[in-house]
Amino acid sequence: MDWQKTLHSWHERISQELDSVVDFWLRHSHDEEYGGFFTCLDQTGKVYDDLKYVWLQGRQVWMYSRLYRKVPRFQRPELLQAAKAGGEFLLRHARVAPPSQKCAFVLTRDGRPVKIQRTIFSECFYVLGLDELGRATGESHYQREALAMMEAIVRWVREDPSELGRPQLAGALPHDSMAVPMMLLNLVDQVSEGDAEVASRFKELDSWSAQRILSHVQRNGAAVLENVSEDGKELPGCLGRQQNPGHAIEAGWFLLRCALRQHNSDLQSQAVDKFMKQPFQSGWDPEHGGLFAFQDVDGLCPTQLEWKMKLWWPHTEAMVAFLMGFAETQDKELLELFHQVANYTFAKFRDPVAGEWFGYLTQEGKMALTIKGGPFKGCFHVPRALYMCEEILKSLVERKFAIQK
Amino acid sequence: MDWQKTLHSWHERISQELDSVVDFWLRHSHDEEYGGFFTCLDQTGKVYDDLKYVWLQGRQVWMYSRLYRKVPRFQRPELLQAAKAGGEFLLRHARVAPPSQKCAFVLTRDGRPVKIQRTIFSECFYVLGLDELGRATGESHYQREALAMMEAIVRWVREDPSELGRPQLAGALPHDSMAVPMMLLNLVDQVSEGDAEVASRFKELDSWSAQRILSHVQRNGAAVLENVSEDGKELPGCLGRQQNPGHAIEAGWFLLRCALRQHNSDLQSQAVDKFMKQPFQSGWDPEHGGLFAFQDVDGLCPTQLEWKMKLWWPHTEAMVAFLMGFAETQDKELLELFHQVANYTFAKFRDPVAGEWFGYLTQEGKMALTIKGGPFKGCFHVPRALYMCEEILKSLVERKFAIQK
Repeated sequence: MDWQKTLHSWHERISQELDSVVDFWLRHSHDEEYGGFFTCLDQTGKVYDDLKYVWLQGRQVWMYSRLYRKVPRFQRPELLQAAKAGGEFLLRHARVAPPSQKCAFVLTRDGRPVKIQRTIFSECFYVLGLDELGRATGESHYQREALAMMEAIVRWVREDPSELGRPQLAGALPHDSMAVPMMLLNLVDQVSEGDAEVASRFKELDSWSAQRILSHVQRNGAAVLENVSEDGKELPGCLGRQQNPGHAIEAGWFLLRCALRQHNSDLQSQAVDKFMKQPFQSGWDPEHGGLFAFQDVDGLCPTQLEWKMKLWWPHTEAMVAFLMGFAETQDKELLELFHQVANYTFAKFRDPVAGEWFGYLTQEGKMALTIKGGPFKGCFHVPRALYMCEEILKSLVERKFAIQK
Repeated sequence: MDWQKTLHSWHERISQELDSVVDFWLRHSHDEEYGGFFTCLDQTGKVYDDLKYVWLQGRQVWMYSRLYRKVPRFQRPELLQAAKAGGEFLLRHARVAPPSQKCAFVLTRDGRPVKIQRTIFSECFYVLGLDELGRATGESHYQREALAMMEAIVRWVREDPSELGRPQLAGALPHDSMAVPMMLLNLVDQVSEGDAEVASRFKELDSWSAQRILSHVQRNGAAVLENVSEDGKELPGCLGRQQNPGHAIEAGWFLLRCALRQHNSDLQSQAVDKFMKQPFQSGWDPEHGGLFAFQDVDGLCPTQLEWKMKLWWPHTEAMVAFLMGFAETQDKELLELFHQVANYTFAKFRDPVAGEWFGYLTQEGKMALTIKGGPFKGCFHVPRALYMCEEILKSLVERKFAIQK
């Protein structure tokens, strides 16, 4: 295979696809009346529910702001206006009872709280969206609000979770869910960009989060487990055996960016070997292709009903991870993996008719849900992956890598 | 078809299957050390997690006690002993912080609370199990405890839900989830049996629950919706459009038993027409057979990832509903539906090798999860349906019904 040609052709396909995906959200998701975004969109983009999930509001604010700030062809007023309207909606409505920093999980269209999760994730995407909005608009008050929320999140995770409202129960094993340090690592990456003062403030958190993620490598290095004890030991039962290959691979590129920030080559090879190659080997369905949603490290049957299903986001994250991994290491195996995953993903999830991607396939790759957006799928993983891959491919193509044939 | 012969043959198959299913739980699920039951059992009955889900503990106590009390061949000391050990486990551990009546959702093997749900269902299965255990053992203190818990549940549902711990949120539509009046109707049925005083105490609740369930018939009688407003109106969005055919059909036989208690022939025909025949017509997969797990009344795509999957319990409940409906109405259509559902169910869910049934199939009827028990599947729907069908078939066969050919 002529890899230079292949990279060229992926660059072109991915750029075109990013245009089409962004166009889908621009056409269908804006709430002109209240600000913020409709994310419950059917195959054609029609709104089937007007609830506003705070994760997805924050993520779309981030995505629009990032595209506006970084990609010249998206420096369009309509993106920035919609991002601002989304940011203002979050500022007005996400926090349920200020001065508490706790945010709702889902709001009505006009911003009244419907449900609160006793976790940190609504707040994390609030930070992600507002920090990037501050950068795109140059209005620093958005970043100040993001940083204040970030302090609250760090306090909840590392000092005192009581404001989250989870009861302390005698039988609940204190444990580290990999999602938590992953989110923190992602946020440090976000808020530190180009700001030495903030980067230095969160330097220790950066390392702490990376170390926490590394503690999920278990079984003498042979597996990434989703949940481990606070001191990095394997936990009993389903909780302890749970694996999520897409999540491990996403952690891979989070760690790889951290390794770049920290000039840490050992972390770089752990990111690639333990969080990219290995979860792919064990998580890829040898029969039908695609990454399983969940696995049990002992090969037992997971209890998640969807464990065999193929979800969009593990595949978008694998595209990012393998391409980024290749760009940093020039390891051709990673480029081949990118090609394999990207081919599967474009063939199965893409909707060339109405735009955006389907999210949920059966094990066999048949469409299970026709929705383009819902309570957990919004304007985020697909355009983020396309934007990041476009950027990496551009640089690869320009560098005209001499790849060993 | 010779229906008399068919009923005979189903009676035989179902009796044998009940023996085999009960045997599975007797062999694999007892915790001899702490009392209570392991329910996370793999295909062969091996324990893959030792957490104890309170719903499933209460249900298994009920099932064993009921079989002991009502079916002569199950009047075996090992069933009663295990039921008692399960009941004692619940008494010792289910309530998280007495004197509060609130129960945990899941406990460690030795009874420490792991998680609390902000709903009434753990408590409902606590009532169900302990009331039946009191009947089977003749030890009335179990029933007293059950009735005290029942009073708390009724108070939470009809007067003051604050002890459940759900925050009151401005955007959360107060609504009636059909599961709540269904559970209450089921509990009234349980605690009233053969006790005129208790029956009279809960007579108003019986009617109230039935009326609440009937308020879920919407669209001019054309559909049962899972969630409606407190005053019986359709709700907006996915919440309002949600349907669960198996749940509607289960409500059908709950209502039918209520109609018998109340000698209410109008309620009987609503139970049969609106809650059995109609949900079956719209919920049965014309392509692959089996009942869908979820549907959207407007035919939109549900957001539940498993909506097309075939779960065991809608099928066991449909077997009970159609057979009970036939026994009460002599409507031959119901007998045909029983035969159709029972054939599908025995062909797809049954495991003739290791006993008990599989719980989770793909839309096409392929096994998706190999587990026999898990966080939501225990010793309940399969043996309850087999026990009830056996009882009804026995009576039908003995009556030697003259069915129009």
